[in-house]
Amino acid sequence: MSLFSGNGREPSSFVAFAGNALDRRSEHRDDSVLAEALESGAMRAYAIRQGRTYLVRNGSGFEGLHRREALEALQPDFDNAILLGYAENDAPRLAVPVARDPDSLPDTIKAIDNRSIYVQGLLQGAELSQLAQAASLLTWAQSHRFCGRCGATTVPKAGGYRRECAGCGNQLFPRTDPVVIMLAVDEKTDRCLLGRSPHFAQDMYSCLAGFLEPGETMEEAVRRETLEESGIHVGRVSYYASQPWPMPHSLMIGCYGEALTDRIDADTRELEDCRWFDRAETADLLSRRAGEGGPCSPPPGAIAHHLIRHWVDNG
Amino acid sequence: MSLFSGNGREPSSFVAFAGNALDRRSEHRDDSVLAEALESGAMRAYAIRQGRTYLVRNGSGFEGLHRREALEALQPDFDNAILLGYAENDAPRLAVPVARDPDSLPDTIKAIDNRSIYVQGLLQGAELSQLAQAASLLTWAQSHRFCGRCGATTVPKAGGYRRECAGCGNQLFPRTDPVVIMLAVDEKTDRCLLGRSPHFAQDMYSCLAGFLEPGETMEEAVRRETLEESGIHVGRVSYYASQPWPMPHSLMIGCYGEALTDRIDADTRELEDCRWFDRAETADLLSRRAGEGGPCSPPPGAIAHHLIRHWVDNG
Repeated sequence: MSLFSGNGREPSSFVAFAGNALDRRSEHRDDSVLAEALESGAMRAYAIRQGRTYLVRNGSGFEGLHRREALEALQPDFDNAILLGYAENDAPRLAVPVARDPDSLPDTIKAIDNRSIYVQGLLQGAELSQLAQAASLLTWAQSHRFCGRCGATTVPKAGGYRRECAGCGNQLFPRTDPVVIMLAVDEKTDRCLLGRSPHFAQDMYSCLAGFLEPGETMEEAVRRETLEESGIHVGRVSYYASQPWPMPHSLMIGCYGEALTDRIDADTRELEDCRWFDRAETADLLSRRAGEGGPCSPPPGAIAHHLIRHWVDNG
Repeated sequence: MSLFSGNGREPSSFVAFAGNALDRRSEHRDDSVLAEALESGAMRAYAIRQGRTYLVRNGSGFEGLHRREALEALQPDFDNAILLGYAENDAPRLAVPVARDPDSLPDTIKAIDNRSIYVQGLLQGAELSQLAQAASLLTWAQSHRFCGRCGATTVPKAGGYRRECAGCGNQLFPRTDPVVIMLAVDEKTDRCLLGRSPHFAQDMYSCLAGFLEPGETMEEAVRRETLEESGIHVGRVSYYASQPWPMPHSLMIGCYGEALTDRIDADTRELEDCRWFDRAETADLLSRRAGEGGPCSPPPGAIAHHLIRHWVDNG
């Protein structure tokens, strides 16, 4: 029996921020790679300041990558740049923190927060996925400027992929926070469980989700989070897809949960509503966007959208 | 069609460190829970110092949990204790850092490094899984005593599950590092790909593994790590099981990878050997332990063991 099923594109390839095709060469990051990359005429970089990315206007759209000469105008901090990897023909791709005031930019450049870039689809495909890597790493680096063990300053190493404490020598590595996001499904009554956080866009319902904690498996985290947020007990758990999520640096792990109970007792501090949707209601919800009136789903780039869609079509 | 398959125990329930059944009440961690837990006569705690856990001799075996009175002799730092959750009857379970010199302990207590506790099976089941949570959290707390943003001191909040910077107010949350661990399988020739790190026990072969990086899906990480370490290209990826791994605080994500190529070009800095094993060789390897002569597998608690075993039995 094959361990692999299906011959189509894998579910994780359909979500926003997936498809980063850079050659990361993670085993070859020594302390010379960044300087070499900065010397390369083929180098292109994402420029980011405090969660806002500086995009280049390109006709009616935007591009994320800047050439070295264009970066100079943005007050780049090359000492704290991070080497993401290499595109075709060994062309280096970097993340560069910049200091230029976003309100004083030329008309050809616009500083846009990363969530809006995703929601409005201003970048897509490989550029959006590389921006996820860039934004996650710069946020991590900026929140690890000092050593958590001794409080001394840390300095970047290995193309920015490691930081080292100048005091005690402690080594720091990039952080990625696993989050479980799950659709609990009651197969007997053909319904799925969706909730509304008060932070959501108006009328939006989505899968429940929460950070995986130390000392639990993915499946245990799915059962714990579903129980804590909704009061619903989950039995079997089935992994579906994952998604990089750069706000600030998570891995969304998308699963289905087999609902064993149906009486909802929602945590009202986390959710302002939580209820069962039958298949027809759920199909309606997928067809609506925020602001169209009536419950709507997260946008098609979100892993929650794909979990809900796959259940409606195949569950 | 059901989204869930199988009716047996889920694969993630067979690995060491799984099965932590504490009620974590993660949504109810306020700043009073730790003091309340310390007042409870039903409180029991794991005592840890620098990666070594203080076990209580119990006949021919060991126990991990200490009562409050027994902790006092170990120089406990209750201010930096962490509330893990609640056992039956609301009995609090804590992780407590202790300072007592491991060389001056009474005969009834022994300080043992956490890897040995796992390898030698000194704790098992729920106690071992709760120790995973305790050890991961204490390591995280001790490596985040200072704020990475401003260098000021951080203080524990929310029963130790959050730290807050006394300088800038930055909030720090426990860290869990996702690691992909995968068995690449060539279904045409019925072989699997195993490697040997120079750090492994003698003659041991295991699955390839590596940290998931910012900006990649689980499947992308499986393909990248396999390619970088072995030169083998992987197509489809199938999730199998996950495992909490408290050295220091990882989540092992176990997958199968469909090998598309068969010429190995191993990264010799990472691996001292990497080769294909047919099904009979792999069954032999599972039946041997380190030191018995000939290639052996990781022990039965390791997720790698389960990935290999499941392929031998069902692949």
